[in-house]
Amino acid sequence: MVAEDDAKVILVLNCGSSSLKYDLIKMPHRLSLGRGIVERIGEEKGMLDQRCGEKKFVIEQKIKDHKEALELVMRAITDPDEGIIKSVAEISGIGHRVVHGGDKYSSSVIIDQSVVDAVEEFIELAPLHNPPNLTGILVARELMPKVQQVAVFDTAFHQTMPPHAYLYGLPRKFFDELKIRRYGFHGTSHRYVSARAMHLCHRHPINTNLISCHLGNGASLTAIAHGKSIDTSMGFTPLEGIMMGTRSGDIDPAIFGYLMDRGYSAKDLMKILNKQSGLVGLSGISNDMRDLEKAAAEGNRRAKEAIECYAYRVRKYIGAYAANLVKLDMLVFTGGIGQHGWRMRERICHRLENLGICMNYKLNKEKGSNEGIVSEAHSPVTVVVVPTNEELQIAIDVYELVFGKESEFRRRRSDIVVGIEQAVGCSDPV
Amino acid sequence: MVAEDDAKVILVLNCGSSSLKYDLIKMPHRLSLGRGIVERIGEEKGMLDQRCGEKKFVIEQKIKDHKEALELVMRAITDPDEGIIKSVAEISGIGHRVVHGGDKYSSSVIIDQSVVDAVEEFIELAPLHNPPNLTGILVARELMPKVQQVAVFDTAFHQTMPPHAYLYGLPRKFFDELKIRRYGFHGTSHRYVSARAMHLCHRHPINTNLISCHLGNGASLTAIAHGKSIDTSMGFTPLEGIMMGTRSGDIDPAIFGYLMDRGYSAKDLMKILNKQSGLVGLSGISNDMRDLEKAAAEGNRRAKEAIECYAYRVRKYIGAYAANLVKLDMLVFTGGIGQHGWRMRERICHRLENLGICMNYKLNKEKGSNEGIVSEAHSPVTVVVVPTNEELQIAIDVYELVFGKESEFRRRRSDIVVGIEQAVGCSDPV
Repeated sequence: MVAEDDAKVILVLNCGSSSLKYDLIKMPHRLSLGRGIVERIGEEKGMLDQRCGEKKFVIEQKIKDHKEALELVMRAITDPDEGIIKSVAEISGIGHRVVHGGDKYSSSVIIDQSVVDAVEEFIELAPLHNPPNLTGILVARELMPKVQQVAVFDTAFHQTMPPHAYLYGLPRKFFDELKIRRYGFHGTSHRYVSARAMHLCHRHPINTNLISCHLGNGASLTAIAHGKSIDTSMGFTPLEGIMMGTRSGDIDPAIFGYLMDRGYSAKDLMKILNKQSGLVGLSGISNDMRDLEKAAAEGNRRAKEAIECYAYRVRKYIGAYAANLVKLDMLVFTGGIGQHGWRMRERICHRLENLGICMNYKLNKEKGSNEGIVSEAHSPVTVVVVPTNEELQIAIDVYELVFGKESEFRRRRSDIVVGIEQAVGCSDPV
Repeated sequence: MVAEDDAKVILVLNCGSSSLKYDLIKMPHRLSLGRGIVERIGEEKGMLDQRCGEKKFVIEQKIKDHKEALELVMRAITDPDEGIIKSVAEISGIGHRVVHGGDKYSSSVIIDQSVVDAVEEFIELAPLHNPPNLTGILVARELMPKVQQVAVFDTAFHQTMPPHAYLYGLPRKFFDELKIRRYGFHGTSHRYVSARAMHLCHRHPINTNLISCHLGNGASLTAIAHGKSIDTSMGFTPLEGIMMGTRSGDIDPAIFGYLMDRGYSAKDLMKILNKQSGLVGLSGISNDMRDLEKAAAEGNRRAKEAIECYAYRVRKYIGAYAANLVKLDMLVFTGGIGQHGWRMRERICHRLENLGICMNYKLNKEKGSNEGIVSEAHSPVTVVVVPTNEELQIAIDVYELVFGKESEFRRRRSDIVVGIEQAVGCSDPV
């Protein structure tokens, strides 16, 4: 047991262009005290919606900018009746979700001016996400100058990828000068669920090869050896990889040129590929797998095809990564579809026994959205469902960095000494 | 033995924009009598270069167009001293390589007006290749009106792919209206080498799952179940898939938009992705694997990285296809790199034993460029090197179609009754 005096409250912030999500997490108890979201920042009518156990707190008013939003958050969390904590002074650390850390950050860091500069520098690589992330950092620093702040990057976990996984077959100058390479995203989620899955199964990262499938509206798969990402399906941007709710995933790059010849602008196409493709584009029905499952069950051919395309593409990545992990030990599902879509998990795992994946279909269905193992007892690969919790991972990182307390997961990872390049991949046999 | 009287001479034509390759093949002996190439058609100084055993025949002169080129070929092949046959009347059939047959042709066909119209229709899908292919057909028909002609499509073999393999995650109208889908190429080569490999190993297509790797300057992999293509790495165009000599292969499609924002035109980018990327782009040295192997052996880091990227991407596709073939039986290598690059074959197969691929490294090196098995006797997957011979496959198709003689391969394939959709892929278990 941890003495209450040692407990620390961590504020986790995730700033979008017109939104701000927050969560107050008590560490090392890993306990969410309450959370909320501010929406429509800068618009005519903004809103804050906060939940704390049974308590619900809503403010509706115009919210000028992120500074006003964070001031509102500070008022809401300390509200005498509906609040979460008594005073802002209880906050011991702040963790920011930052989308792009470029090739500079391979782990979370305490924010100083050099970090602020880097987040700004990488706006070029994440023009939609890094600007609000940066605003969140600056505003939080202004309002709570004495509290240590930590940046947790979506890309950081994937910085361990070897060159053969992150280099594209493009002229070298695009990498050297424009930094075009695979970065990968969802790193915080892949890191959390892989560590959690290994913990659940009492496995050590050193001898565990794992594929984590984060299947949400955005979706990516990551191949993990010795606790480190060795490849991931999202690339230079979150558009690459498997089909997603509204994103195309992998396509022949020549299609871009072909459609431009037919009158589409680059801007049109970026919008179409990011917002009108994937499940919603192919089915013409919805980007929500639940709607598609329903339509397919009623006999809709396009819904069925979209579902099968989706499953097939996930299967291809599982095969690709399993081959290069040499031997697969665990397969982890998370994200909206990965956690809740037992039918899709079934489709993905069906007849992959040759990879060692023997799903227990009955158990998988019964497990539904809950955490736990869904493979047969005799399955060489353990298939696990883990609800992701990026906020918790961010709080863990803040706690470790600010208070120097290493989590069990991190301690386990730190005794890894073998270079994965030697153990995995396509190095020469001779 | 076949009586000489029954022997038929087939002329195989492969027309490029400024070239014409030809081969005279005696069937059913499968014997090339002689072959040649006409180059620089339409330019100031054209050339015909023909070989027939020890005999070499060269003509250098301006060659106005494909008609003049084919007239020259007819003169060269019947030259009293250096020719290949005595008279053009000996030619019993003509086979044309045609790149794109769209979604209309799933096998080779005797050319009539509807075929000519279709080849013209699909110019939109293959603007560089179908026009000279069409010219070749029209000119040959004009010069040899009594000889039956057959079109053999690069795309035809892949028309058996199921929708989950050929559909992209794009708005449905791009498929419905613009026919944007995976077509795949190199079909004649994949068909030839897979049939040849099964023949060599006395295997029947019905219970053989196979991956064929055509690794030339252009390169693609095909997953074959029951003798039918169920997926292939090239897509809407030959740009998609693994890295190639000068082509990028798979990239994040958003890179196209990113580079356009930085001043590149769509035309620039199509040229860069097709001509200046892949091995030559990444290494900055050469598109020829032999040059890269040499540079890598001398310690050049970029050459080494390009080689490793190439091998890794092939390995990913092998893994992806092996998973979806449920169980892999054979792996076939062909094309310049696949046939001659024993080092690359080794890199690709190294540590894929978990897929059942146990290469005999010594045998693989000794085999060099020759046809034969290069896996261990105990290997669950038989790894085979097969020199491709698209001309021979075209001649076989002509012979079968025009004279109604079924080859052993075709007869074997024709007793396939099980639908592959039921046996392979991600259909529902329940």
